[in-house]
Parts: sequence; C-alpha cells; structure tokens
Amino acid sequence: MGADRAGPTEGTLAVEPVKVALLGCGVVGTEVARLLTTQSGELASRVGAPLELVGIAVRRLGRDRDLPVDPSLFTTDAEELVTRADVVVEVIGGIEPARSLVLRAFAHGASVVTANKALLAADGPTLYEAAAENGVDLYYEASVAGAIPLLRPLKESLAGDRVTRVLGIVNGTTNYVLDQMDTTGMGFAEAVEQAQALGYAEADPTADVEGFDAAAKAAILASLAFHTRVSLDDVHREGITEVSAADVRAAQLQGCVVKLLAICERGVDAAGDETVSVRVHPAMLPRAHQLAGVRGAFNAVYVEAESAGQLMFYGPGAGGQPTASAVMGDVVAVARHKVVGGRGPGESAYAQLAVQPMAETVTRYHVRLDVADKPGVLAQVAGVFAQHGVSIEAVQQRQVTTGDGAGRAVLVVVTHSATDAALAATVEELEDLEIVDSVAGVLRVEGGDA
Amino acid sequence: MGADRAGPTEGTLAVEPVKVALLGCGVVGTEVARLLTTQSGELASRVGAPLELVGIAVRRLGRDRDLPVDPSLFTTDAEELVTRADVVVEVIGGIEPARSLVLRAFAHGASVVTANKALLAADGPTLYEAAAENGVDLYYEASVAGAIPLLRPLKESLAGDRVTRVLGIVNGTTNYVLDQMDTTGMGFAEAVEQAQALGYAEADPTADVEGFDAAAKAAILASLAFHTRVSLDDVHREGITEVSAADVRAAQLQGCVVKLLAICERGVDAAGDETVSVRVHPAMLPRAHQLAGVRGAFNAVYVEAESAGQLMFYGPGAGGQPTASAVMGDVVAVARHKVVGGRGPGESAYAQLAVQPMAETVTRYHVRLDVADKPGVLAQVAGVFAQHGVSIEAVQQRQVTTGDGAGRAVLVVVTHSATDAALAATVEELEDLEIVDSVAGVLRVEGGDA
Repeated sequence: MGADRAGPTEGTLAVEPVKVALLGCGVVGTEVARLLTTQSGELASRVGAPLELVGIAVRRLGRDRDLPVDPSLFTTDAEELVTRADVVVEVIGGIEPARSLVLRAFAHGASVVTANKALLAADGPTLYEAAAENGVDLYYEASVAGAIPLLRPLKESLAGDRVTRVLGIVNGTTNYVLDQMDTTGMGFAEAVEQAQALGYAEADPTADVEGFDAAAKAAILASLAFHTRVSLDDVHREGITEVSAADVRAAQLQGCVVKLLAICERGVDAAGDETVSVRVHPAMLPRAHQLAGVRGAFNAVYVEAESAGQLMFYGPGAGGQPTASAVMGDVVAVARHKVVGGRGPGESAYAQLAVQPMAETVTRYHVRLDVADKPGVLAQVAGVFAQHGVSIEAVQQRQVTTGDGAGRAVLVVVTHSATDAALAATVEELEDLEIVDSVAGVLRVEGGDA
Repeated sequence: MGADRAGPTEGTLAVEPVKVALLGCGVVGTEVARLLTTQSGELASRVGAPLELVGIAVRRLGRDRDLPVDPSLFTTDAEELVTRADVVVEVIGGIEPARSLVLRAFAHGASVVTANKALLAADGPTLYEAAAENGVDLYYEASVAGAIPLLRPLKESLAGDRVTRVLGIVNGTTNYVLDQMDTTGMGFAEAVEQAQALGYAEADPTADVEGFDAAAKAAILASLAFHTRVSLDDVHREGITEVSAADVRAAQLQGCVVKLLAICERGVDAAGDETVSVRVHPAMLPRAHQLAGVRGAFNAVYVEAESAGQLMFYGPGAGGQPTASAVMGDVVAVARHKVVGGRGPGESAYAQLAVQPMAETVTRYHVRLDVADKPGVLAQVAGVFAQHGVSIEAVQQRQVTTGDGAGRAVLVVVTHSATDAALAATVEELEDLEIVDSVAGVLRVEGGDA
C-alpha cells in the first residue's frame, strides 16, 4: 500500500496511528467497526496514518457479535474509553449518556463523529462551543439523510453562496408509507403495518410518523443553510397520521403527490427583518417536481441557492451500511486533521436570524370541503376566503351522489400564497357555515416558486 | 455583522484580510468579482477574515465592465498579480498561460481555486505535486458539473467508502441536444442549430459534441473516485455526432433514452488485478434510471459506493452564476485555511490502478441490422454473435415495406454483457454477411446492474 501523495507536510512521515474509539455497536456501529478493520489499508492511505480501533463501548459484554475484531476491545466503560482516543465515534443515539460522553471526549482533546440528530437538534450549540473551546472537530454528516453527502456540501461547497430554501424528504419510513398509499390506494394504518412488516418502520413508529425525526433533521439543515441557530423547539412539526387515502386521491387529481417535507426557507417579518421558517409537515408536491419521484424509503434533499440555482441530492437515507459510509467519511476528515493539523469549519451562526412563527409562514393551500349542492355555495365560500385576504387560484366542484337524495358536492379550493394564520381563520369560519358539512381536508401545497 | 462563532482558534482575532487575485474576467470571473464585492460581509463571517480583491487580470484594459469594483484593480500583468495574493482564482481556461500562472502562484505561497477542467485533465499531477510541495491548496470544484457539489463529496464525504462506479451527464450542451432529439424527433444537426440559437452550444460546438469536455471531466472524476491517476489520454471518447434520429427512436422502442455518459468503473484485468475503465460515449439508458429524467442543459452524476449504495447529485452544470457558486465555495475553504492553518486533502493517488483498454471494457449493446426478410436470417445472425462469445438477451424482428418488393426487415439485438472487442468483431463479421444490408446502429446500453 503506497503512502498518500498529498505532499511533504502530511502522510508519509506520520506513522503514529490515530486512535479511534467506538461508542455503540448496533447496526451502524457494527458496520463502522467492520470498515475500520477490513478497509484499514485504504483508510490509512487516505488519512496519512493508520486508524487504530482502541475500543468499542457496549452496554453488555458477552454478546455474540459477528465482527472480525479482537474481543478484548469491547468494554462497558465508555467514560474511560473516550479518554484514550483521538477520535470518538458516537453511535449510541439519544441524549444521555451520549451528550456527556461527547463533552468528555472534547475535554480530553478528542474529535467526535456522531450520527445523533436528536442530540444535535436538542443541544447542538453546547456541543459546538465545547468542540471550539477544545480546538477539536465535531462532524455529523450521518445525522441527516444517511449516506447522502449533504451537510458537507451545505457547509463547505455552498459556503460562498446564499442558500434560500431547503426542501427535503429526510425520513425514509414516512416516504415509504406515503409512497405505498400513493401507488396502492391503501390507508395510513395499513401502509404503516406493511412498513413494519418489511422493517421500514419500528414497532413504535411515533418518532417517524409524527415527524419528530424529520424535525430534528430540519433544525440541523436550517442551522447550516442559514448560518443561524435553530433548535428542535423552533421547528413547526406535523406528522402524517392525519393523511388519509382521500387526501392522497385528492392530490392525484391535482397532479400532485403527498410527501412529508422538511422545509427551511428564508422569510421577512413585519419589520422587514430577515427570518427563517423551519417546518415539517405533509404537503402536496407537483409530480413534475424533482422530489416527487423519490420512491420507497429513499431520501432526497432539494436546495435552492442564489448563485447555484436548484440542486438535488439523492440516496439511501438510513440503514447500517449507508450511515456507516457517512460516519467513515467524517472519521477520515477528522483523523486527517489530527495528522496534518487544522480543524474543519466549526459552527457558523453569525446570522442570528429570528425564527418565523408558523402563523406568519406563507404557503399555498389545498382545501377540500363537503358542501350542499345548491346555487350560491361557491359565492359564499369564496367570500370567506376573500374576507381573510386569502386569494383563490382555482376551484373545482364535483357533485356527489348520496343515499338520502339531498344534493351534496365536494368543493376543492387551491389558494395563492397566504399566511398560516389567515388560512386557519378561513377554515374555522368555513366550518361554521351552514352550507358546509365539513372541511374534509387541508393540505399545504409546496414546490412551486416561492 | 457578528464574527464567526467557530471558536477561539479562529476568526475573531484575525483581522488581516486574505488577499484574493482574480485571473480572467469573463462570464464566471465577472460573477466571482461581483460576489466578492457584494457578499463581503457574509464571506468575512464564514472565512474568519475579510476577503480583499487585490486585482483582476484581463487581456485588455479599458473595456466597459458592469462591475462594482475599483477600476484600478484591473491589470494586464497577471504574472505580477499572482505574487501578491494569498488566494488566486484562475478562470482564464485553456492550458497556457493558466498553467504557468498557477505554478507561479504556488511558488509564491498562494493557494489556487480553478474551474479549468482542460488543464487538470491534461496536466493535473504537475499541479497537485506543486501545490503539495508548497504546502498550499489547489481546489477545483467548478471544473466538473458547475454548481453541483460533487468533487468535495467524492473526495471527502466518501473518503471512508469505496466508490465502484460513477455515471454522469456532465455536459449540458449535449444533454440539451439529445433531449431535443428525444422529445421532438428532430435530427442531430437541427438540434445543434437550436442549441446554438439558444446559447446552449458554441458557434464551434466541437469540444462539446465530440465529447472532449466530458472526457476531461471523466478523467477528473475517475482520479478522485478511485484514488488513482487518470489523464485525458486514458479516457476512451466518442461524441454524439453519429447519433441519429433513428437511434433515438430505437432507444424509445426499448423504453430507453440516449444520453452522453461519462462512465468511470472499477474492473479487473486478465491477471485478476484491479483496473479502472474511464470512457465517454452515447449510451441507451432505461427511462426508469435516475439519470434518464435529466432534461435540457442540466447535469447529474450518479455514484455507486459499496457502503453508501446509490447516490445522485443534480443541478445546473454550467453558466456564470452556478460556476461562480462552486468557485466561491472553494475560495472560502482555502481562505479559511490561510486564516486558521491546515490544508485540504491533496491528491490521493495511492491506488495506482491500470486503465482498462476499451477493447476489454464490458458492457451491453443494442445492435440494429437491416436484413433480408427470409427464413434462416435470425439463425445466421445469432450464429455470428455466438461465435464471438456474445450472448444475446433479446431479439426483435420487424418487417419493412420497400418500394422494390424485396422483403427486408429490421433486426434488433440486445446483448448481455460482452467486451468491446468481441462486439466489434461481431459487427465486422455481420457487415460481411450477404443477408445483412447494413449495421444501421450500434449503441451501448448502460445503467443496468454491472
């Protein structure tokens, strides 16, 4: 194996190995350990020094693990392990003990690579600041969209550009469920059961279907895209549990597909100051949109930037191997910094933008109403929209045959851009109209020109 | 404007500006100068120090340039300019004087950002080594696929993975031409004229339509993907000038689309040693393939890696603004290294893989034959394929009405994977068969499982 040809300042003379500690040995950890072992020659060439796996912290010893590593590397003492590593890979997940271990690693001069979106979205700034204070790296490419190189492009490739919007399908479970509903017409519950049977959804699918997972990722994406701090609490979150087969059919009739989107957009508040809107919710997306064709459990993120224009990144968003690929890319980067010096870009939060309240967020809406089929209904409904300043782009009315002989109809209204508050007030008033049986569905429409 | 919060080791105390010299002020250079000027506050926050534009080298002074910069910054003395910069942005293009100026910049301790694919593909190693010897950076994200963050992901995000294949639409001009032929049925010449009228093709479209531009990009992609040296001479190159309306129709009948692909694949030679195959040629691609839907002048690159799986990167592949976005991302990175120390990863060519001769390259083929319509023709044709060890996947025969009453038919043969040499020998022998009027078209079929 030849040495890295990167030049006299690096590689060829560095024979001291970089010590890597692995915290967690689940699906991702196992794969990371395997790659560290089986690809050691190639990795050494890329880093400029060998990577030495010095320990694997697990909850319990003695489990049969199908890994080609020295069994003595396993330990239950993660606190001790992090003190003797140059690079700590945290793939335990959750807030504690991950948080304390990462901080302890920093304090001992180790750089950290993590896939822990929940921790970053909940308490990122504490970690970013601790990394900076100790002059070490905190890398987390694997925390969003699995194997897809996304955070490094946002943080580094687009560092000379101005990102205006990020629109992402960042949760494979919900994309699988919605895709099944779209292609087969099945309902939400049935699609979730199928996803569970195939291993795409957990026994308790709450974190996915309620949008918590996507919201954590949205917070991370928004922070990077707009150079500002966004935490999980700043993210407006709606899951897909309320998406019905009727909603999916309604989307199809509009030439759209329903996707759970993580949306990060620049906005402006009433005082004219720049804001960011960060939200996760199901939305209709035109079938011609790049993201509409993302099938099954795949992830894709669409980025708009002032100079670059429209970019898209696509790939597997989860799974042991894809996630390990992202972790290992980060391991090579931070290990190389240990060998040749330097540090990757740290947190960039200079912009300090305010987060736009959801009520002020502007988007388009698709409103489906069950109404009486008689003259004057449309005028009355349109009047309510107008009264709240919500401009209508298109209306469709369809007669419905009912058993009792009363004339009923379905009225579909697609609006121009309006604030969430105006739309909510409109819907509330519509529900009180005598001619409206019910507001059968409200879905935001995304993917047009903002 | 707040300071970058990246920590005590960077940013806040560095008030010395980073001096940036711009070589060339064409479409891309103008946009780079504009961004350096109008985005100076944001850029300073991201770099940790202001970027100071110290000069713009142009061929002739006195032209009206619509740029908000001090006119005294323009100079015709590029050789002098590079000696007083920390970062040199080379957007002149071509081999000389770009090459000499880049080497001179390195010798004076400047890092270089370039969009010059021709120079890198022709003489990359000289530049990589000079950068390493001088301990400076050479970044070139803009050289391939314009605004799409692609080289950094390949070089850094996938540094812990093993890339097995890169399949890219990396030339917008030819993609526009082929897309027009596909959607309208027009011929090659007419589509090129239209591309010229719309500014998608140059007056002399040779570099694009003959595949030279894509070949330079393929050499760069293969070098990065496989950690080995690949130069322009190593790339097998075929342009799209021979692609006919009939080829495009034939592809449609197969559920395919014709694309000019840059292909970089791992292979194995007769001795069992690893090789790389790097080639640019038109190929049929199934419409279900991610790349098949890339329309107009857009670029997209599909990457397969062992752990990550299948990734795709999509966006604008050319144009002043998108290219400037990629240039500026690199400028921020190398300027930051000037401020906080460190260097990005240099050339990684440890793998030293041999380049597979095109004759040994394995792919599938679509062969269209004009034949006599009589019994035994298929057997005879199939015999020739078999004789050369080329296995047939599917055959279709279609009768053709001719004026002279003689029965003619079109025979379409799609093969399983075969070497280029075997296919070439097969075609040569087919052309000699009495029952074969002509071999009307041969196109490789890509995008299946290798």
